[in-house]
Amino acid sequence: MAGTDSTKTPSLSHSLSPRPAIILVEPQLGDNIGMAARAMLNCGLEELRLVKPRDGWPSDEALAAASGADGVIEKAALFDSTSDAIADLGRVYATTARPRDMTCRVTTPTGAAKEIRQFLGAEGEAGGKVGILFGREAKGLKNDDLALSDALIMIPVNPAFSSLNLAQAVFAVGHAWFGLGEDETSETELAMPKETRAAEKAELEGLFGHLEEELDEAGFFHVTEKRPVMVRNLRNMLQRAGLTEQEVRTLRGVVTSLSAKRKT
Amino acid sequence: MAGTDSTKTPSLSHSLSPRPAIILVEPQLGDNIGMAARAMLNCGLEELRLVKPRDGWPSDEALAAASGADGVIEKAALFDSTSDAIADLGRVYATTARPRDMTCRVTTPTGAAKEIRQFLGAEGEAGGKVGILFGREAKGLKNDDLALSDALIMIPVNPAFSSLNLAQAVFAVGHAWFGLGEDETSETELAMPKETRAAEKAELEGLFGHLEEELDEAGFFHVTEKRPVMVRNLRNMLQRAGLTEQEVRTLRGVVTSLSAKRKT
Repeated sequence: MAGTDSTKTPSLSHSLSPRPAIILVEPQLGDNIGMAARAMLNCGLEELRLVKPRDGWPSDEALAAASGADGVIEKAALFDSTSDAIADLGRVYATTARPRDMTCRVTTPTGAAKEIRQFLGAEGEAGGKVGILFGREAKGLKNDDLALSDALIMIPVNPAFSSLNLAQAVFAVGHAWFGLGEDETSETELAMPKETRAAEKAELEGLFGHLEEELDEAGFFHVTEKRPVMVRNLRNMLQRAGLTEQEVRTLRGVVTSLSAKRKT
Repeated sequence: MAGTDSTKTPSLSHSLSPRPAIILVEPQLGDNIGMAARAMLNCGLEELRLVKPRDGWPSDEALAAASGADGVIEKAALFDSTSDAIADLGRVYATTARPRDMTCRVTTPTGAAKEIRQFLGAEGEAGGKVGILFGREAKGLKNDDLALSDALIMIPVNPAFSSLNLAQAVFAVGHAWFGLGEDETSETELAMPKETRAAEKAELEGLFGHLEEELDEAGFFHVTEKRPVMVRNLRNMLQRAGLTEQEVRTLRGVVTSLSAKRKT
């Protein structure tokens, strides 16, 4: 395809607005990371986060495959786990090309793009941040990663051949974001009082940890094999509520209150 | 990304309708041809035409990079010139990621997709066919190729980094075409496993009542005037999660379990 027009300055029409981070979870090939970085920059996205890339980091293959999107590769941040990678984010989307057997809010790339622009517009000054998770090449995201997310972006593809190249998936979502005008917003929105803000993932993680600790003590997870699934389901349903920071504190109060021995 | 669902038959919702052919003009790397074929099949497109591929044809690299879209590669037709490749077509589009210094009708991938569906719908039975031209990797299409086309599809990308991978360009156009065929469903929906259903309001009410009763007993609402607001806030956040009937039961279990601990 056509090359970059070097007479243009590298400013975007959206250059001053905040943009979502792209998070690749356990990507395998440096090649794919590089192509994803190139696809990101095609769509004006620059913040790349990597969770445990299989072949190590930095990667010469990634840099070569980025075909000039060197800055995205060089500034990529490395994390040990998905929850570390999303800790400072206010909203997280997970991507998939096939339906999952899980209760979750599902949207399209365009639907997500509208929501993201709206969320960043509303939260921008307060520092709300958005990230989009992409799974490893062959298998996609694990259900545990999905449970950390607020909604699922399902990329509509041929159901008989839904195996999407990683960079292609990044492009499908990024391009929907890029193509949207700044003034286009989602019809449905989550209004929230001015004095609060969306909970950050680290705050949610704190709530989940607190709840699970108390439930462990109370013997709720008495069938040990079922614990992981039950934990995931609990996290998933609380996640979906789109909690504010204030609400997370309220729920922690609820957990403490219910489990505290009655004062007599 | 997620794999192909082998339980699905390879038929598309659009399977009986005619579809545009993808024409790669002088593609250089077999790898890129293969990735383009994969992107095509992701979007339900199967007819690939090649004009003078630099490294010859057939290509093992192309077959490997197609990642399963073998049929597209194997049925690809070879041509000596762009005009040979489009001879039987009723309408031809050329793609580019940068403005051209030429007078021509320019549209977006979505705009072209609408036109193509309309053209094929009207002309389908009479045998009208559509093709979309993509240029070589580094330089894009020549002006001579553009002159053979009815309109230009300009793929909107970051003007400061418009160098699109060939397969990415094919996907951008193909996906717009594929996406139009989807039923006009809401962009966002709540997916849930088959064996459960959305909780009824009475079930939610039961959960709320249960929770509030235990919180009353635990002394959570110790500032009596604040009770109504706190109750409303709790109901509101749980409401927003869009709970299933199964999840309501799980949360009731959580409340019971935490409270039992308090009571021991």
